[in-house]
Amino acid sequence: MVRAQFALLDHLNIKTLHACVGSSLGGMCSAQAAVLFSDRIRRLVSISACTYSHPASIATRYVQRRCIMTDPNWSNGFYYGNTYPKHGMKVAREIATISYRSGPEWRQRFGRQKIEGAPISLCPTFLIEQYIDYQGERASVMLDPNTLLYISKAMDLFELTPEELKRIQMPTLIMGVTTDALFPVWQQREMAHQLMENGTPTTYYELPSLYGHDTFLLDIHGVGTAIKGFLETAVSEQTALRNTISPFPYY
Amino acid sequence: MVRAQFALLDHLNIKTLHACVGSSLGGMCSAQAAVLFSDRIRRLVSISACTYSHPASIATRYVQRRCIMTDPNWSNGFYYGNTYPKHGMKVAREIATISYRSGPEWRQRFGRQKIEGAPISLCPTFLIEQYIDYQGERASVMLDPNTLLYISKAMDLFELTPEELKRIQMPTLIMGVTTDALFPVWQQREMAHQLMENGTPTTYYELPSLYGHDTFLLDIHGVGTAIKGFLETAVSEQTALRNTISPFPYY
Repeated sequence: MVRAQFALLDHLNIKTLHACVGSSLGGMCSAQAAVLFSDRIRRLVSISACTYSHPASIATRYVQRRCIMTDPNWSNGFYYGNTYPKHGMKVAREIATISYRSGPEWRQRFGRQKIEGAPISLCPTFLIEQYIDYQGERASVMLDPNTLLYISKAMDLFELTPEELKRIQMPTLIMGVTTDALFPVWQQREMAHQLMENGTPTTYYELPSLYGHDTFLLDIHGVGTAIKGFLETAVSEQTALRNTISPFPYY
Repeated sequence: MVRAQFALLDHLNIKTLHACVGSSLGGMCSAQAAVLFSDRIRRLVSISACTYSHPASIATRYVQRRCIMTDPNWSNGFYYGNTYPKHGMKVAREIATISYRSGPEWRQRFGRQKIEGAPISLCPTFLIEQYIDYQGERASVMLDPNTLLYISKAMDLFELTPEELKRIQMPTLIMGVTTDALFPVWQQREMAHQLMENGTPTTYYELPSLYGHDTFLLDIHGVGTAIKGFLETAVSEQTALRNTISPFPYY
């Protein structure tokens, strides 16, 4: 993916990037770009991402892929012109929604509120069920299923080794969200810690947002403020030096 | 469920229980029993349970039920004598497995280990995927799907009000596990805190186990030691008094 992006930059005759910024898969890509094209990137921002997919996030994506691939309409990927595998896509998105948001957010937003007039049955009773159903329905036709499968698998396979991380020497901002279930905050801590140990000038923030992994889509102020500040502030050697003494625990 | 259990106790002519002990749904039932039959229970032990299902756990169970109920073989529950809805049950159990265990456990146990000889494809690549598949397959025929649906819905609907909790006055042990994703530790904290505020003699433990919600099935020593100690130790009024000054934060 990153090589394709840089092929486009070559085509556009763009030699150097002021910064490479991304969240989630984008945060993985921005870190990968900083490793592969370290001489072409001046600053790196990686938000709610990681240096490798950990097993619980692989497990979640595996179940989502299984939902799509076991939908009879998926037809081994040859569904174009035939019935779209909507059912598998919907369940996959319902699972994704649970992993993208957070329990504390839903507690505040829905609590145990019931759907008005809904009788006690095996059908949805609580507003949270209606919300999950709506999110699944809405997103079930937003992305080509095969595209989703390949992106999902690419995320599982993503891994930057400690040796590769050493190539990241440009000023770097790492951000994590304390309620993120899919890319838990220990992953961003670990990444920042490794960079600091390598002497990379690293700024690290944890955001105590309620919105879990989706925070970068929702808390524009919380996430954006740090990016703006980081992109506009000079990073001195002193910054790098100070940060090599990491103030936070590894895990 | 609890009324049925006590109908059985009546039939067996058992008037009083030395203690009512349960984990997960069992921990909900033991608390419900302590509310409904407070005069027949001398001690209460509730492990990895809660006083109400919170929206993220309702969401997880909702998606599991959908997997079963949208399996064409479920046939609105009339599958007896016909094809068993194995596919829906398997996916439901795969989702359950993710909610029962913990990322930190899988990190230690599987990390990013790959299946030997598995090519890079959309099929399982990592050991964690094989494990999830195995757990889904194994458990897909362990329980009658309709039974699972009703138990699942009953857990969603479970709720003890603050007023009902006040009826729990017997010595009580509450245990939570720090890595539990399905019944997160703030729920056991909240329950213990409410009981302490009510003046109930309450003992509260958090177990820093790796096994998430399934800890009570796996860490027999960690969970069992506390239960043994609690059942064998006299609880004085002093205990209740001390505990009304709660040493831990609410959330």
